[in-house]
Amino acid sequence: MAIAGDPDILSDFIVPANVTTIDASFFTFTGMRFLVPATTFKVSKISLAEFPALNGQSVSYAVLQFPTGTPNPPHIHPCASELIFLSQGTLQVGIVDTTNKLFTHTLQKGDVFVFPKGLVHSQYNADPQEPALAIPAFGSANAGTVSLPNTLFTTGIDDNVLAKSFKTDVATIQALKAGLAPKP
Amino acid sequence: MAIAGDPDILSDFIVPANVTTIDASFFTFTGMRFLVPATTFKVSKISLAEFPALNGQSVSYAVLQFPTGTPNPPHIHPCASELIFLSQGTLQVGIVDTTNKLFTHTLQKGDVFVFPKGLVHSQYNADPQEPALAIPAFGSANAGTVSLPNTLFTTGIDDNVLAKSFKTDVATIQALKAGLAPKP
Amino acid sequence: MAIAGDPDILSDFIVPANVTTIDASFFTFTGMRFLVPATTFKVSKISLAEFPALNGQSVSYAVLQFPTGTPNPPHIHPCASELIFLSQGTLQVGIVDTTNKLFTHTLQKGDVFVFPKGLVHSQYNADPQEPALAIPAFGSANAGTVSLPNTLFTTGIDDNVLAKSFKTDVATIQALKAGLAPKP
Amino acid sequence: MAIAGDPDILSDFIVPANVTTIDASFFTFTGMRFLVPATTFKVSKISLAEFPALNGQSVSYAVLQFPTGTPNPPHIHPCASELIFLSQGTLQVGIVDTTNKLFTHTLQKGDVFVFPKGLVHSQYNADPQEPALAIPAFGSANAGTVSLPNTLFTTGIDDNVLAKSFKTDVATIQALKAGLAPKP
Amino acid sequence: MAIAGDPDILSDFIVPANVTTIDASFFTFTGMRFLVPATTFKVSKISLAEFPALNGQSVSYAVLQFPTGTPNPPHIHPCASELIFLSQGTLQVGIVDTTNKLFTHTLQKGDVFVFPKGLVHSQYNADPQEPALAIPAFGSANAGTVSLPNTLFTTGIDDNVLAKSFKTDVATIQALKAGLAPKP
Amino acid sequence: MAIAGDPDILSDFIVPANVTTIDASFFTFTGMRFLVPATTFKVSKISLAEFPALNGQSVSYAVLQFPTGTPNPPHIHPCASELIFLSQGTLQVGIVDTTNKLFTHTLQKGDVFVFPKGLVHSQYNADPQEPALAIPAFGSANAGTVSLPNTLFTTGIDDNVLAKSFKTDVATIQALKAGLAPKP
Repeated sequence: MAIAGDPDILSDFIVPANVTTIDASFFTFTGMRFLVPATTFKVSKISLAEFPALNGQSVSYAVLQFPTGTPNPPHIHPCASELIFLSQGTLQVGIVDTTNKLFTHTLQKGDVFVFPKGLVHSQYNADPQEPALAIPAFGSANAGTVSLPNTLFTTGIDDNVLAKSFKTDVATIQALKAGLAPKP
Repeated sequence: MAIAGDPDILSDFIVPANVTTIDASFFTFTGMRFLVPATTFKVSKISLAEFPALNGQSVSYAVLQFPTGTPNPPHIHPCASELIFLSQGTLQVGIVDTTNKLFTHTLQKGDVFVFPKGLVHSQYNADPQEPALAIPAFGSANAGTVSLPNTLFTTGIDDNVLAKSFKTDVATIQALKAGLAPKP
Repeated sequence: MAIAGDPDILSDFIVPANVTTIDASFFTFTGMRFLVPATTFKVSKISLAEFPALNGQSVSYAVLQFPTGTPNPPHIHPCASELIFLSQGTLQVGIVDTTNKLFTHTLQKGDVFVFPKGLVHSQYNADPQEPALAIPAFGSANAGTVSLPNTLFTTGIDDNVLAKSFKTDVATIQALKAGLAPKP
Repeated sequence: MAIAGDPDILSDFIVPANVTTIDASFFTFTGMRFLVPATTFKVSKISLAEFPALNGQSVSYAVLQFPTGTPNPPHIHPCASELIFLSQGTLQVGIVDTTNKLFTHTLQKGDVFVFPKGLVHSQYNADPQEPALAIPAFGSANAGTVSLPNTLFTTGIDDNVLAKSFKTDVATIQALKAGLAPKP
Repeated sequence: MAIAGDPDILSDFIVPANVTTIDASFFTFTGMRFLVPATTFKVSKISLAEFPALNGQSVSYAVLQFPTGTPNPPHIHPCASELIFLSQGTLQVGIVDTTNKLFTHTLQKGDVFVFPKGLVHSQYNADPQEPALAIPAFGSANAGTVSLPNTLFTTGIDDNVLAKSFKTDVATIQALKAGLAPKP
Repeated sequence: MAIAGDPDILSDFIVPANVTTIDASFFTFTGMRFLVPATTFKVSKISLAEFPALNGQSVSYAVLQFPTGTPNPPHIHPCASELIFLSQGTLQVGIVDTTNKLFTHTLQKGDVFVFPKGLVHSQYNADPQEPALAIPAFGSANAGTVSLPNTLFTTGIDDNVLAKSFKTDVATIQALKAGLAPKP
């Protein structure tokens, strides 16, 4: 058991080191006014790095764009829950709890779904025609993401350790690594 | 200084007392699929009370509907920040920090604005024609709201104490109380 | 739900940046030895700003002086409870909970009263002859105060937004603002 | 490093299990109205056990009465700071930090002194004539006290372990135990 | 950012519901006195489930036995750090941080290694002859484990979603699932 | 009631100010590889000061060496629990809870014992022949220790205050101080 959420702050808000005057624009993020349609799955974050006024405020947003047939691969936000609002299309969602039970569901436009803290989850737009747009809120200004395909197969973990861990052979591991490697 | 966010939970999620089987619908809130247009300012909450799966997950949503010319009166969420996403129309927002400095701004569609924890804030749709729709996320499953007009003038606080506190006369206090009183 | 109290500190206490030698006087606040009688309601704080040794210690004091017939106007300490000790006179106290239920009481000398975290509360010395003296303790070194009359009516919030929020006319709002404005 | 203060509560306040109606008296503690003069050092607590409304509010009080020549023996409140207000007499106070540095001071009436969290501290009224009265506030509803003379010498810790720990002989340990044992 | 560690408790310790008498054996765990040699990688936990006295104490242990050539597959403890003490053999350890940087090291007997909170990590005994024995401590009574091979490939996540996420074909996903499936 | 455990960190780990390159050795502590036998009771810490990678990770270790007949004198870790693993010999342990109830036990090799947060506790190797070796883990990177014999009798607390507190005479206090004073 752990306490979620960011520590609060001694002042009403935190003025970044390089800022001398605070006006209302400090509290405003305008980067989502003109959202460009995406051709691959795309995450646009509104977190501490992009919006410094979130420092100490325990909440952040992202915008997820799913062209048809694209997944958000299995990942974990170690200590933050994700509350997703589906504003366009449909979306298959899945979570695996720590007893290894899988929960799956297909969201309709307007649905809200919660991915509990620390659980592996994924999303997939199975619709052959309509893109999906989802807005997740997080209970932290900096939720952090551990993307599992990349973490496991593009960071150089030893082939032998992976082969034994996934009970497969080294050739399969090397093929997975090749598939996920950044393309030149 | 305080720690924001809800305590985390010993299990992946909290099964309510009256629930025997958990499936994916437990994690889904469908109440926003069919949002009825509003004729007065209206708050539709997606918090712990409406969506029990949020228990211990430190995050919640609401949907705010502003017909033209309607305000969300000044209020406080004592220990939660509010991160608002404007999905339709324009919206005047204001916050007062604890040095009594006012920050005001007019949001455009797609803008995101953060109301820091514990500060008095209000919103107003000044547009004479277009309604506004805003989606706030909170860094708590149960942000709580102290609406100031109602708290001050509809709960029975002594007229004399209010008159002295607001440096006005008892007649003005009584007029304010009458205006805010629930209509039969 | 939030965690109250200040984060603890990695050392036994925090030595301020400009201090080179710590002796016992660092832990001592002598500003209350000679308390001057007040002719208007007066708050004397013993918090982080006045007493740096409180940094990280999660507790602070104030001294409240109420001449006859004076109120402490409705206010909020967003994330700190207040535990008040009445050491002289009598005092009417009131709290409004988040269901808008008002609780009022008249304290006698020696009584202790708790104002729960985040709730609007006020105090009033209704006695025509005897001043009242109260000592509140807070569960934070820096409780913060949002005084509602000033926050609402002296910070420049738009007259129209206030009139609509308080369901009154602009003239009444302007009269309230004039009454609360600092006198030259 | 630890977080001090009690977890906050999901409601404005916690209604005890056996209470059906809450009115303002629930928030009021009247046990200090008539404080009887003490002939030995006496602690009167206003904490969670005596005042259930403090549950989840992160703050409590006590009243300490020191007849002339009486000490409050060395003790620890493991995770709470103590902020003491001296309302009568003078008081010698001492704290030992975790580098084993001793800080001592003599407080005058009206002085406020902070004993940081987790440190051994003691108080002593050295005045031959005037009693002292002190009001400590704690940043917890239930500060807890580990009184060192009693914990060490009246609980049955093995004489041999104590003799080796205090680098003395068993006879001295037995004499200390006899002196501190409750008198029939 | 989140607060690690379990909430503390209102009492010195928590007496389980079915326990009527607490004596010193309540604080003692004897299950490790006779550790049987393992032929496959084996985790023996000393956490809240096995040792109820840990409730609220923010710390736990495990014992890891690595026969020659066995891995502890990549996994995550979502909100707890792991501090491992190698008491026998050698051990290859690896962590991947959230920028996808891999850190690997080979520990010698007596070494201590910290796996920061929420990061994917693995361990492997590469020694062809000597088994390894490691004792990890966790900053939580109930650290929780998300084992990645099992979570990803034995819980029923859709083949197509996995194939697209791992940029491979469905046949490879099915082969991985078959390899990891429990053997009858 | 307090929250135990260290605040988590905004990054995966904290790079010390004077460190420019992080590699796997940063996460490794090698100081226990060659543990020298002790002739008096000896504590070897693996905490924040010795192992900077523990910063923000809420866990630490120590190694305790008990030659025959030696105690670890009564002490307190104010806000951290201690979970001890006995890896050699036998060990008498004792804790005193805040109701002044003593719990004692003799641990066998392989036993694990928990000392709850904030309680006075001691350990003693009563075996006339075999040394004892114990490994405690703490739920904090910096548990802190208040050793009671030294804190009480080697820091200069006034003889008279101690004599009255321990209900003995000044001569006994002075003898205890002399016995515990550092030898030239």
